[in-house]
Amino acid sequence: MIKVVLDAMGGDNSPKEVIKGAAKALKESSEVSIILAGPKEVIESEEAYGECDKDRISILDAKEVISLDESPVMAIKKKKDSSIVKGMKLIKEGQADAFVSAGSSGAILAGGQLIVGRIKGVDRPPLATLIPTEKGVSLLIDAGANVDARPEWLLQFARMGSVYMEHVCKVKDPVVKLVNIGLEEEKGNALLKETLPLIKKLKNLNFGGYIEAREIPKGDSADVIVCDAFTGNVILKFYEGLGSTFLHIVKSGLMKDTRSKIGALLIKPALKEALKAFDASEYGGAPLLGCRGLVVKCHGNSTASEISTAILQCESFVKLGINDKISEMLEADKLCLDTDVRQEQKDEQ
Amino acid sequence: MIKVVLDAMGGDNSPKEVIKGAAKALKESSEVSIILAGPKEVIESEEAYGECDKDRISILDAKEVISLDESPVMAIKKKKDSSIVKGMKLIKEGQADAFVSAGSSGAILAGGQLIVGRIKGVDRPPLATLIPTEKGVSLLIDAGANVDARPEWLLQFARMGSVYMEHVCKVKDPVVKLVNIGLEEEKGNALLKETLPLIKKLKNLNFGGYIEAREIPKGDSADVIVCDAFTGNVILKFYEGLGSTFLHIVKSGLMKDTRSKIGALLIKPALKEALKAFDASEYGGAPLLGCRGLVVKCHGNSTASEISTAILQCESFVKLGINDKISEMLEADKLCLDTDVRQEQKDEQ
Repeated sequence: MIKVVLDAMGGDNSPKEVIKGAAKALKESSEVSIILAGPKEVIESEEAYGECDKDRISILDAKEVISLDESPVMAIKKKKDSSIVKGMKLIKEGQADAFVSAGSSGAILAGGQLIVGRIKGVDRPPLATLIPTEKGVSLLIDAGANVDARPEWLLQFARMGSVYMEHVCKVKDPVVKLVNIGLEEEKGNALLKETLPLIKKLKNLNFGGYIEAREIPKGDSADVIVCDAFTGNVILKFYEGLGSTFLHIVKSGLMKDTRSKIGALLIKPALKEALKAFDASEYGGAPLLGCRGLVVKCHGNSTASEISTAILQCESFVKLGINDKISEMLEADKLCLDTDVRQEQKDEQ
Repeated sequence: MIKVVLDAMGGDNSPKEVIKGAAKALKESSEVSIILAGPKEVIESEEAYGECDKDRISILDAKEVISLDESPVMAIKKKKDSSIVKGMKLIKEGQADAFVSAGSSGAILAGGQLIVGRIKGVDRPPLATLIPTEKGVSLLIDAGANVDARPEWLLQFARMGSVYMEHVCKVKDPVVKLVNIGLEEEKGNALLKETLPLIKKLKNLNFGGYIEAREIPKGDSADVIVCDAFTGNVILKFYEGLGSTFLHIVKSGLMKDTRSKIGALLIKPALKEALKAFDASEYGGAPLLGCRGLVVKCHGNSTASEISTAILQCESFVKLGINDKISEMLEADKLCLDTDVRQEQKDEQ
């Protein structure tokens, strides 16, 4: 049985949709149990809670709620009785396997670092987000956790992303690329110039060089897209902004004259279907990889079905032993870089 | 009379479209003269050259061409007889006012730094690009020149962008924002955290705080969008990539069934018109601000009309004395920051 702590108070649609999501997940899998973190009386008054299998659901009473407008680090330190702090402590103590929340991104990221802690070999847990592309999905890592990255962190992001895509998303030998502003080796900032020679030394990593931002939406050249969180978050936010602006322009264009209005009515169903595949919110939770257990951040506007998907994601993540695989591979990478240093020292003598 | 050196051999459509652009500009303005840089015999054999007013056009014979696939810095150093090197030298020596090229971006940026040189007060010339938004255009600065920026450079980018938008693009009191991954003051990487308190000290700058990437396409909150060139280039390239992917998805959705196909035929003209306004290539040349004279980089696929627009842009830039305005304002900014430092030292005593 996989134990998932679910933040009942996180997200725009909490607690209703969150608890509905819990009920849905329990129905879909018999191997998951859920601990709902939040104020007991609020959770108990939700209709969906009544429908849950009581053998596999319990409540972790937490009176405080961390809101979106407070400083994440301060909130994590002060609100000891919040669903995020109490829930994450269970993961730290090994009493539960995973933590899922659609609440304050900042608080989830800060809590992942400060409360849950990291697995062996990981310096900084990155946020890994599946982004829609024309061909399917790619994993963007780091999409929001570490805005000032170091070369060795990018190597770890690459490795963690590769393990995740291969084992959780079942992509054979995933292609890993670094985001840059050109494809030539001499292009890029200081961070990339230091990272390139190092990442090339890693074994069993299908490194494919650089990728330019314009290629990302096409989705045909990389499975894992590695960058610092500043770049990653700019890309992620832009996905939302440009898509919706574009749609807005198309719509206003179609309302211009009668001919276009009739045409617009005819194309509406097909257009809706086509654009659905490109909606970033369809892809459930984003894991903060490299944390002890598993921490998953869901979109703030998640519905029951996204919450349920995120919970079931945790089940396969834990069952597949992804964290052990990550630690093993990172250990091998370290040896690989060390051996190389030793060899260079030998050569110099 | 404003003297513009035009790289006859730069861009996918050179020399034909470039020389046509020269002819067009000469017809549209009587106050500009053009020096075409390139192999004399190639230029003379072009039909459009024959149509030009010979009193206002001349040839700067340059036999070598810098191609897109060679290292920009090496090319600038080695190809002394190229249109870019010879053309830029005229600007440096004060024999011409502006240089326009649709050739290798890297070579233009490197040449701007290494050959042309900077005006007083500027540490690093940034590339300033007008990007289309739902409401009009915004200026993205730095869009490609300095991938590792320092706080004081970002301040200069902000100032130069503000002067350009106000005087060249006639935007009254332009709003300047810094690209960040959130709006709260504590958000951002080390670069932004150092820049924020400094930029707030500048006088006569309409600084509006941070802007998230998702807001950029809407165009209703900032006239000047400031960032390092790594971030700027990611944004610029993404504009192209996401737009074309989106269009592709819409198109394939519309070919799904007969109903949609008929609808698609009806909406085609309106859709085309709506999307045209959102085409980044419509906005002509991007100035490398802060160089002596003026260096303008045009899109590689520029047509005669874009080349002509870029030339006429140079005319107003030089006539308005933008460089003097920039130097004056930067001098004032420096005093402003210095005064502040002195005041702080006083307070501490």
